[in-house]
Amino acid sequence: MEVGWYMKLVDLRVTEFLAELARGSPSPGGGSASALAGALAAALVAMVADLTLGKERYKDVEGLKGVSTKAVCLKTKMMCLVDEDSQAFDALLAALRLPQGSAEAKGKRDAEIQQATKMAAEVPLELARRSVEVLKLAEVVVRKGNVNAISDGGVAALLGEAAFRGGVYNVKINLSSLTDETYKKAVVQELGALEEQMAILTNRVTQVVDQRIRT
Amino acid sequence: MEVGWYMKLVDLRVTEFLAELARGSPSPGGGSASALAGALAAALVAMVADLTLGKERYKDVEGLKGVSTKAVCLKTKMMCLVDEDSQAFDALLAALRLPQGSAEAKGKRDAEIQQATKMAAEVPLELARRSVEVLKLAEVVVRKGNVNAISDGGVAALLGEAAFRGGVYNVKINLSSLTDETYKKAVVQELGALEEQMAILTNRVTQVVDQRIRT
Repeated sequence: MEVGWYMKLVDLRVTEFLAELARGSPSPGGGSASALAGALAAALVAMVADLTLGKERYKDVEGLKGVSTKAVCLKTKMMCLVDEDSQAFDALLAALRLPQGSAEAKGKRDAEIQQATKMAAEVPLELARRSVEVLKLAEVVVRKGNVNAISDGGVAALLGEAAFRGGVYNVKINLSSLTDETYKKAVVQELGALEEQMAILTNRVTQVVDQRIRT
Repeated sequence: MEVGWYMKLVDLRVTEFLAELARGSPSPGGGSASALAGALAAALVAMVADLTLGKERYKDVEGLKGVSTKAVCLKTKMMCLVDEDSQAFDALLAALRLPQGSAEAKGKRDAEIQQATKMAAEVPLELARRSVEVLKLAEVVVRKGNVNAISDGGVAALLGEAAFRGGVYNVKINLSSLTDETYKKAVVQELGALEEQMAILTNRVTQVVDQRIRT
């Protein structure tokens, strides 16, 4: 199975995607896997919201319809990041393969690498941002949602957090080879703010889930 | 897209799997999503091992061939758990729908529910066990593997940990409705031991990855 411009990773069967990931080629890699984890998290949030809406017992719960819609949109956005991450990485590899025979060629290559590396940092940064949104929705469903689906909401939070941290790894690894210090500083600052939010959200969700899952 | 005995979840396209997960039906749910996260983790370990093997710079590194083989097997095992979790849950729902008109029917229903709940606990317990194995392999690849793939090894560990904790949620939720105290005690004990191992492994892997990913 060849994956290229004509074939999206997310159009592969799950078995094929896993085989493609396991192959000893650099892409798809951890960035795409993290994005898929984020999409799984968003899908689970949508599921719990839908398992609550319309149930007599939960008829007075408000705001879950909005959660379901937002979660489905986030699922789609993160699904796109699965392929975008892989494409950004391939573009970076292509830039690295540019000729560097003359000073001019070398200059052009360096510029292309910097440009491609920025793009390769932007995709996981976007994943990190979206993962924080998923966690916010996960908190709503574990607090207000159908208690029979509490473990599903809990797993949504776990996968959203893993997607976030995977995204952060991938941003950082790309930042390390960038020379634009202004850009780096801005990204590091944003990452710090996102990490703070994520820590608060995961703590809160874990507390609720642990309280409701007792043996 | 109807998923049933004739159609495995892992044979769905990634997009279809996500849509199936997001639907407001109780299965597939967090258990299957956790198992898929585990399979993604195992696939990434295999990828990093293969990106190391055969590279001149890493020709003296030993034991990675074994890691690659083991990781691919774990990927397959966890992929099976995606469908098994969903099937175990469906069997439990079927038991809950059994008639309870007479005392005899009620007794039969209770027994079936207990049996199905045990099975629904066994699948995520197996996932938790396998996730610990994935983390052990992830530790090898982040320590000895191709440093260019450090973030991929890091993501493998994150997803393996999320799969583990998702499995634990699903074991616990099922244990809470079991009456066989001997079985429950044994499982709680095993979970405790696995949680201890997992905490040590994730700490160690995170340290190595954080050290190697610097901005």
